[in-house]
Amino acid sequence: MSVQPSPASPFHSLRGKSVVTLDSVSLDELDYLLRKADYFSQHPDQARLTCPGRILATLFFEPSTRTRLSFETAMLRLGGQVIGFAGAQLSSSTKGETVADTVKVVSNYADLVAMRHPKEGAALVAAKAASIPVINGGDGGHMHPTQTLADIATIRARFGRLDHLTIGLCGDLTFGRTVHSLIQTMCRFGHIDFVLISPPELKTPDYVLDFIRKTPSCSYREVTDLQAVIGDLDVLYMTRVQKERFFNEDDYLRLRDTYILDEDKMAFARKDMAVLHPLPRVNEIAFNLDEDPRAAYFQQVKMGMLMRMALESSLIGDPAPGFIDDEEAQRQEIKEV
Amino acid sequence: MSVQPSPASPFHSLRGKSVVTLDSVSLDELDYLLRKADYFSQHPDQARLTCPGRILATLFFEPSTRTRLSFETAMLRLGGQVIGFAGAQLSSSTKGETVADTVKVVSNYADLVAMRHPKEGAALVAAKAASIPVINGGDGGHMHPTQTLADIATIRARFGRLDHLTIGLCGDLTFGRTVHSLIQTMCRFGHIDFVLISPPELKTPDYVLDFIRKTPSCSYREVTDLQAVIGDLDVLYMTRVQKERFFNEDDYLRLRDTYILDEDKMAFARKDMAVLHPLPRVNEIAFNLDEDPRAAYFQQVKMGMLMRMALESSLIGDPAPGFIDDEEAQRQEIKEV
Amino acid sequence: MSVQPSPASPFHSLRGKSVVTLDSVSLDELDYLLRKADYFSQHPDQARLTCPGRILATLFFEPSTRTRLSFETAMLRLGGQVIGFAGAQLSSSTKGETVADTVKVVSNYADLVAMRHPKEGAALVAAKAASIPVINGGDGGHMHPTQTLADIATIRARFGRLDHLTIGLCGDLTFGRTVHSLIQTMCRFGHIDFVLISPPELKTPDYVLDFIRKTPSCSYREVTDLQAVIGDLDVLYMTRVQKERFFNEDDYLRLRDTYILDEDKMAFARKDMAVLHPLPRVNEIAFNLDEDPRAAYFQQVKMGMLMRMALESSLIGDPAPGFIDDEEAQRQEIKEV
Repeated sequence: MSVQPSPASPFHSLRGKSVVTLDSVSLDELDYLLRKADYFSQHPDQARLTCPGRILATLFFEPSTRTRLSFETAMLRLGGQVIGFAGAQLSSSTKGETVADTVKVVSNYADLVAMRHPKEGAALVAAKAASIPVINGGDGGHMHPTQTLADIATIRARFGRLDHLTIGLCGDLTFGRTVHSLIQTMCRFGHIDFVLISPPELKTPDYVLDFIRKTPSCSYREVTDLQAVIGDLDVLYMTRVQKERFFNEDDYLRLRDTYILDEDKMAFARKDMAVLHPLPRVNEIAFNLDEDPRAAYFQQVKMGMLMRMALESSLIGDPAPGFIDDEEAQRQEIKEV
Repeated sequence: MSVQPSPASPFHSLRGKSVVTLDSVSLDELDYLLRKADYFSQHPDQARLTCPGRILATLFFEPSTRTRLSFETAMLRLGGQVIGFAGAQLSSSTKGETVADTVKVVSNYADLVAMRHPKEGAALVAAKAASIPVINGGDGGHMHPTQTLADIATIRARFGRLDHLTIGLCGDLTFGRTVHSLIQTMCRFGHIDFVLISPPELKTPDYVLDFIRKTPSCSYREVTDLQAVIGDLDVLYMTRVQKERFFNEDDYLRLRDTYILDEDKMAFARKDMAVLHPLPRVNEIAFNLDEDPRAAYFQQVKMGMLMRMALESSLIGDPAPGFIDDEEAQRQEIKEV
Repeated sequence: MSVQPSPASPFHSLRGKSVVTLDSVSLDELDYLLRKADYFSQHPDQARLTCPGRILATLFFEPSTRTRLSFETAMLRLGGQVIGFAGAQLSSSTKGETVADTVKVVSNYADLVAMRHPKEGAALVAAKAASIPVINGGDGGHMHPTQTLADIATIRARFGRLDHLTIGLCGDLTFGRTVHSLIQTMCRFGHIDFVLISPPELKTPDYVLDFIRKTPSCSYREVTDLQAVIGDLDVLYMTRVQKERFFNEDDYLRLRDTYILDEDKMAFARKDMAVLHPLPRVNEIAFNLDEDPRAAYFQQVKMGMLMRMALESSLIGDPAPGFIDDEEAQRQEIKEV
């Protein structure tokens, strides 16, 4: 009796892979990671049996406390351990050596690397040099794929779907890499209406708009006034507008308040709108909104940790005990042998 | 058959609580923590089964290596894990955000926070913002409750009691927060004679003396000469006299040696006196006294770790296997359901 | 029936010991550590059961990321845990206190210390003050015994022996402490021909040559040209030639390339020669040699971690489950009781 070889399951295709950008993660794999994160959320005891004896190395060539702690917590909650450094701990010797050499050394210690580096492209260099999987935890202004995983997991947790949504993105749409990555990724799911809310100085770059234009089921409009459109939105993704981005102080002062979310503006929003923010926030969301059930930015922190749990265990290739996808994939593997 | 609801056991009343100052910890709870620390000391293997899968976040906005390592060791010896940062690792982004936001983020990662911050009141802000318990590991010149827990556990380990003692406090009694907190806490146990030994420039503040005055079973006297009173003491709590505290160099040079503990002065002390010091020491205790059995300051380090084990497990609410108080409290809980 | 007391096995003689230099580690103990490292390499699951509940403190008074991560990974792979600091995390308070006091404090937290300190002799001071074993992770220009353990383990892994070898040491032989320690240790195994390859400015110091002269089975010759001798070597130990070491820029520029290992020079080397380097490398080994099977410097990183696993578990005194030496030693212990 012959068994037809099934197409590679995400359990198999993610094993050993490095994730420098989300481009290399298929829709099937994204869906698998989202469901695995759900599973870990509901089964913390099984999660803790997933990666015993595994070691994550967090190589943070520049500090980013929130991101580092998320990667580390994820591995600890999988039953693994963590080594690493965080910017200020860097020895002069490490600074002198190439990223490739550092990663080759660490490949002898750990099972997985999460790396943050101030230079664009550093994560790709590391992924090529390493003999273990590398996750890009942010490289310069470039990519930060696990932030986008946190974002889509939060949207899915709120709406149960990742399409047929109206998503407003508000603030600095020129330099905000999380915004660009989210637009690009949501276009892959399709059927999204984007509302791009920014001052004229901080509009979405053309190459990002191209992702939307190339996706027939998606649309966008560019506006400057948050309050005028907030009532249309399922999701409002807030970002920080930095003073330095403006040509002059007058423009900044004139526009600043337009992009601060407060109770007055929330009064115009739908009852089930979700407010996201990649954090840290300075003052662009009023603190008294934290108790509003529509505030999703701290849930987003939790979803980020859960998605990192899903990603870390999958790249290492340890099956999550009791997770049906992994158990099915292992059964396929045994049959095919 | 009806069961009378028992008053909340410390096991129940401590669960989920934040400890910003010791004021919020009742005498019953202190007694419970002292006995639990004893239990962990004698049963390290059971200790290690107490908090499996739990995560402590050490958020040290200023470095304090000894305190941080004590909190971390305590959680590891309970079978849990640790994440965190230590001053220098702080990202610029974390610096920009409020303590409340940082703690709200970390509430999604960890089960418990131990925080140190240079600003008075920061721990209270954190405790209010967090959805998990927060332990104050020192906030400015304000409070440092776990140091006091270490102090009283050491006194109890040496004398078997926390009352009917003559306690000398020596050195800088004006600015030494550990001294103030110890006086206040010992007054709650009562029957303490305090001997306050300091230069006139560094006397105990009035609001601290008020704690003693309000406690009928306690008394105090203020003296300037350590050697003259050392023979009366059960406990000698040494602190550092900093040069900067003096109005002029002459006064400092004249007084300095009066407050240095050495073999000569120890010759006048009782054979069972206990010498405590919150550490780090500079030169206020001669190094050759370390071997003297009356030197209790390194035992104090160990008691600090054990009390942090007791506190951490109790705030998280995990029962210590085999610890009779916790098992009794759980039986009560089951009956009452 | 009387049992003759056997000479102390390395399992017993290493237990509780501090390792400041390799002088204090006997050839029997070195052999035992090498075999234990092999065992851990082949039995990672048993390794992980060796030190449960143990805590290593990494006290790095100056940063050295690679060395610190190696010590930490070793303890995690033994099933233990890690606390510590790494240079930049040092509090001002810790800086003010003596190394002896810091180590006395940490003796109450941990089961083992790995220490790095910029001052020569600091490790010895620490070992004397501590009530737990201390491993010197480098103190000033002095000693770095675990680097030498990594070196000899790599040579043994490549050749199956530690004698009857021709070992070339190339580059800065004056200031390179790893080179001095390796020469001294290899002389203990004997039957080594050393080829000392350096510019005249950076020759091996006389006191190091004395180790060779005093060992009848060993010999050395001093040369300046790597390419001329590379064909004779079993092992080529490369080190970095720092520009600052030269009297003038011209000498540096003239000599630099002579001590850079590249494909051209490797063409003259034996097919089974092993290239070692303590890392970090700057440019003294061409990056395209990394894929050459003779490149052993990343294997050296792995051997360093394995030797630290062997050393850490042995000093703590926890037997490795299934390791025949430890089981035999424990049987002896039971008989003798």
